[in-house]
Amino acid sequence: MIIVMKHNATQGEVAQVIAQVETLGLQARPIIGEERTVVAVVGDERPVEPEQFELFAGVERVMRVLHPFKLASRDFHPEDLVVKINGVSVGSSQVIVMAGPCSVESREQLMETAAAVKEAGGHILRGGAFKPRTSPYVFQGLGLKGLELLREARDAYQLPIITEVLSPQDVYLVAQYTDIIQVGARNMQNFALLQTVGETNKPVLLKRGMMSTVEELLMAAEYVLSHGNSRVMLCERGIRTFETSTRNTFDINAIPVLKSLTHLPVIADPSHGTGKWELVTPIARAAVAAGADGVIVEVHCDPAHALSDGAQSLKPEKFAAMVSEVRCIAEAMKRTV
Amino acid sequence: MIIVMKHNATQGEVAQVIAQVETLGLQARPIIGEERTVVAVVGDERPVEPEQFELFAGVERVMRVLHPFKLASRDFHPEDLVVKINGVSVGSSQVIVMAGPCSVESREQLMETAAAVKEAGGHILRGGAFKPRTSPYVFQGLGLKGLELLREARDAYQLPIITEVLSPQDVYLVAQYTDIIQVGARNMQNFALLQTVGETNKPVLLKRGMMSTVEELLMAAEYVLSHGNSRVMLCERGIRTFETSTRNTFDINAIPVLKSLTHLPVIADPSHGTGKWELVTPIARAAVAAGADGVIVEVHCDPAHALSDGAQSLKPEKFAAMVSEVRCIAEAMKRTV
Amino acid sequence: MIIVMKHNATQGEVAQVIAQVETLGLQARPIIGEERTVVAVVGDERPVEPEQFELFAGVERVMRVLHPFKLASRDFHPEDLVVKINGVSVGSSQVIVMAGPCSVESREQLMETAAAVKEAGGHILRGGAFKPRTSPYVFQGLGLKGLELLREARDAYQLPIITEVLSPQDVYLVAQYTDIIQVGARNMQNFALLQTVGETNKPVLLKRGMMSTVEELLMAAEYVLSHGNSRVMLCERGIRTFETSTRNTFDINAIPVLKSLTHLPVIADPSHGTGKWELVTPIARAAVAAGADGVIVEVHCDPAHALSDGAQSLKPEKFAAMVSEVRCIAEAMKRTV
Amino acid sequence: MIIVMKHNATQGEVAQVIAQVETLGLQARPIIGEERTVVAVVGDERPVEPEQFELFAGVERVMRVLHPFKLASRDFHPEDLVVKINGVSVGSSQVIVMAGPCSVESREQLMETAAAVKEAGGHILRGGAFKPRTSPYVFQGLGLKGLELLREARDAYQLPIITEVLSPQDVYLVAQYTDIIQVGARNMQNFALLQTVGETNKPVLLKRGMMSTVEELLMAAEYVLSHGNSRVMLCERGIRTFETSTRNTFDINAIPVLKSLTHLPVIADPSHGTGKWELVTPIARAAVAAGADGVIVEVHCDPAHALSDGAQSLKPEKFAAMVSEVRCIAEAMKRTV
Repeated sequence: MIIVMKHNATQGEVAQVIAQVETLGLQARPIIGEERTVVAVVGDERPVEPEQFELFAGVERVMRVLHPFKLASRDFHPEDLVVKINGVSVGSSQVIVMAGPCSVESREQLMETAAAVKEAGGHILRGGAFKPRTSPYVFQGLGLKGLELLREARDAYQLPIITEVLSPQDVYLVAQYTDIIQVGARNMQNFALLQTVGETNKPVLLKRGMMSTVEELLMAAEYVLSHGNSRVMLCERGIRTFETSTRNTFDINAIPVLKSLTHLPVIADPSHGTGKWELVTPIARAAVAAGADGVIVEVHCDPAHALSDGAQSLKPEKFAAMVSEVRCIAEAMKRTV
Repeated sequence: MIIVMKHNATQGEVAQVIAQVETLGLQARPIIGEERTVVAVVGDERPVEPEQFELFAGVERVMRVLHPFKLASRDFHPEDLVVKINGVSVGSSQVIVMAGPCSVESREQLMETAAAVKEAGGHILRGGAFKPRTSPYVFQGLGLKGLELLREARDAYQLPIITEVLSPQDVYLVAQYTDIIQVGARNMQNFALLQTVGETNKPVLLKRGMMSTVEELLMAAEYVLSHGNSRVMLCERGIRTFETSTRNTFDINAIPVLKSLTHLPVIADPSHGTGKWELVTPIARAAVAAGADGVIVEVHCDPAHALSDGAQSLKPEKFAAMVSEVRCIAEAMKRTV
Repeated sequence: MIIVMKHNATQGEVAQVIAQVETLGLQARPIIGEERTVVAVVGDERPVEPEQFELFAGVERVMRVLHPFKLASRDFHPEDLVVKINGVSVGSSQVIVMAGPCSVESREQLMETAAAVKEAGGHILRGGAFKPRTSPYVFQGLGLKGLELLREARDAYQLPIITEVLSPQDVYLVAQYTDIIQVGARNMQNFALLQTVGETNKPVLLKRGMMSTVEELLMAAEYVLSHGNSRVMLCERGIRTFETSTRNTFDINAIPVLKSLTHLPVIADPSHGTGKWELVTPIARAAVAAGADGVIVEVHCDPAHALSDGAQSLKPEKFAAMVSEVRCIAEAMKRTV
Repeated sequence: MIIVMKHNATQGEVAQVIAQVETLGLQARPIIGEERTVVAVVGDERPVEPEQFELFAGVERVMRVLHPFKLASRDFHPEDLVVKINGVSVGSSQVIVMAGPCSVESREQLMETAAAVKEAGGHILRGGAFKPRTSPYVFQGLGLKGLELLREARDAYQLPIITEVLSPQDVYLVAQYTDIIQVGARNMQNFALLQTVGETNKPVLLKRGMMSTVEELLMAAEYVLSHGNSRVMLCERGIRTFETSTRNTFDINAIPVLKSLTHLPVIADPSHGTGKWELVTPIARAAVAAGADGVIVEVHCDPAHALSDGAQSLKPEKFAAMVSEVRCIAEAMKRTV
């Protein structure tokens, strides 16, 4: 932590800052420059809120030196984490394809889609039973019935499943049915939910909030990890920017940034990252070329009549073409699909 | 809803769109332009997801015409809502001041701050018992003990209280202690929480998410309203932008925009909206000049040692000066404090 | 400047960084922490690009300590700058109102608007002769003819004038006609233009780019100041964010932030800052309550037929009401209009 | 264009809007819905500013239907444009690599870098002679001397060159030396510059502004095209967002979006798009996988001592590796390098 004093800060003000640093059990190293004094702080700054120093007279601003996360940091876990789920290894040299409908709508819809996912070479079946919806007037998901259908499809097609949980009360219920628990973008900083998920032993796919920095994503992972669950996978799914030609802006930079900062696997969601089905395949290719460990995409047999997210869902034949194109890129990266 | 067809869309493609509009129980009015055909849709489009039409062959994009919210709309409630809380009227000609510490830390800290809030002319006492914190390694709030202390301060100083709830399970517990339930910015789209809060009969202060649009804030309010709780107050607390000289960018435009779109009262939070105590008073003045019905600010007797959000907390004497300056602006607006 | 080394940086890598710091004529103070070493750099870092150190092996990132601007800094100019223009003092206790049409369209239009500005108590007449337009297919301004009309209105109504210049070649021409040169938001980082404007002796109103930070605005001012022109006024006119309910997001925080960082006067442009005429008056009030030294607004006698920016222009009677409301707020701030 | 009336708009207000539409030579088609009336406008809306209708009583908002660009639209030019420059074809099945130093610093530096670019298989040499710099205190480029050195390197290594122009006065000078004129991100809306560049017969690389939408980029291209220069190439170079772990956020979505909206070639700049040399290669790969027609990257033989942009420059050996990796991806896309 570096505390930058104001241009006209007095010696007494510097002394007060130093005293507080020492009260916190840290060491202070003042450096007197030509225009300003800075106080460098030595020690583990993580349990401290740097902003508290901005209250001291004579302080201009405070800058962190250490990353605030530790369990999620590659500094302390140089080897890639591989998460194994019923024979599928996420984070290995294989690029993983997770696919399925946005919402589970009916047995017929789910089974038909699962068959298409399996046939095209997908590895994991996704589907929403509890849906976070911006409007209270639209379809909210089938709930428990959706979980049961997912389980049925899982067993019928031998595909591990992933589904989202919205509320701490539902975590243990969802964990009984699913192979991977998904924490959605809108819940990335729902700390009560992160804590409960952290207390289970299920692998977790943690989606980046559309308003969250890479560092905040890693801090959300730190919540799960610090509650005892080490099998966390991260997902880039687009951030909100000023651009309106796509629903979100897929942050491709985040993929290599995350791979360098953390040992956790990184999955790309080009469906939400673009919001338009025509863009899903090119962005899936790009994500793999940037180093993603897998993709998660929405597939629907009749997207024009989907109860949610139709605009970004691929039809089965387009999905099969996507898998094939992603495979070409993976091979150019010396990986498999 | 307006469906814009592609430049080269065929008559058959237009016909398919029209058929789907009619299947949904709406009417279609095609308009053939020189470069493009558009299909105008007549009827209540709210239960429909416009994006589903983007899947149809020949469709370029879809634009909404109606606001997606209805219960929150001034179109249907032209009169301002006044929320009465133990003699305090939010949304009236009086500008309301809510103040107190970010977190409840101890009886002494809370009582001392409550006394200062009361003496300076504050109307409502704020304080956090359950805290949403970005890092799992910092103070997470006193929980139930914090609620009990808030209740004690409420009774001692005759100040209604407001406190945040993080999780659906805690809603009924919190509702037993507090006068106003706060839903924080990070939970603005925690739909499970909005629904539970909507089932209580307590007034709600709903904070805008840091990367949520005004329309999404009104849709979050719609969740609470549609579950039966009509006493919702909205809070602008700064949005996330590219600017780094302040923690957030206080969206002053949102105040008159909200006042024109909805009948719900609008409160400003200049503490979070700036992240720096020096900016709290000027932005509080600005918010009232823009038409806010009240302000909510953080006050701490020893902010440099606060366990959270010290950098944006006012000391009691600065808070008293703020109330006095806000009063001058309120009077220039022909309102009182 | 603070250079943060990587977790596993070697002593040799630290030594190379120190050697380069010393080559640049600066001093290096290494501080060895538990997890990381940082190198604090003492001396004037302004002619150095901190990013160059990110290339050295073992360096994680570099943080600036000093503000990159100096001539624009209040650290070196504690007193407010007052810019005097034909009897109008910008930056004094008087809040200045600049008003007029977006574009000069005809003698009749300009004279009628100038009369309305004068009568309502405006101090300075604005009007565009050279217009930056997003589309090549719309009205681009009257050019020289517009400058002549502005001069005529200036003399007829005894109002100093302000007009924009788009290109270095036009600076001396425009300077012959105008009292204040405006550099528009899209040209805030047109360094050729800033340099030429800096070589004139005319006061300059420098508008913040819609994509620019407060620090970049001050660096743009530094360009003008460092070329010899000290009479620079800054203008907040809204930034681009994800919010779509207004054309721009007026950054109210920037007003007190700028007032603390610089001695230059700060003007608010609520017309561009909102893009909607209904919001101009509330945001003008808010800007003055936040400490702005003046406002610049668009006024048009027939905005529905304006050749540009009609949507954000006030009619004369609404402008007169705005001046009156801004005066009430100014008086609450112990200033005049 | 669709004009949405307010909920309570009167018949007279609708009539006034219709009258104004007809005055502009367009046709109005009112559609009376249950909650609102909308007026659909038929005809070429491009010379009209939709916002002017927001001034009419009873109007809520106005939505465009047509894209505001025409010469840049694929609707009117379905075939890809191929720009031929001394034997290099941009927009063909070959993926083009443009590379070189950010700034030309000396003959030695440029020749050494040009040799490395040629040897690694680069097609076009880039280098800045006129530099747009945020600070007036840092290196501003060699100017004319830089142009002469570029010409020398061009002839010595048989590499076409590209260099930036900052000011309309310099356009003809720069055009005498360069093969491609670059318009930089900060000048994307410098309309005086766009116009002058549009009057030359040199190919133009137009970089997207860091806070410009895809539509604004296409409108800037429209300026150049409408002044007679049809050989425009577009460049995605990262946009400004809230994320701070990279200098900019490379908008990968923009690549397929641009390829669908326009026939102009699309180049990716991963150096500016990330700001960090470690990220240049993964993002270059991703851009090609997303469909880019080429990349432009910064190469420097001694980046730690570069006079500008060192942090994002590749050393020659890293550049050679990048070309090789990009070639693998291009081949997976059935293209060549």
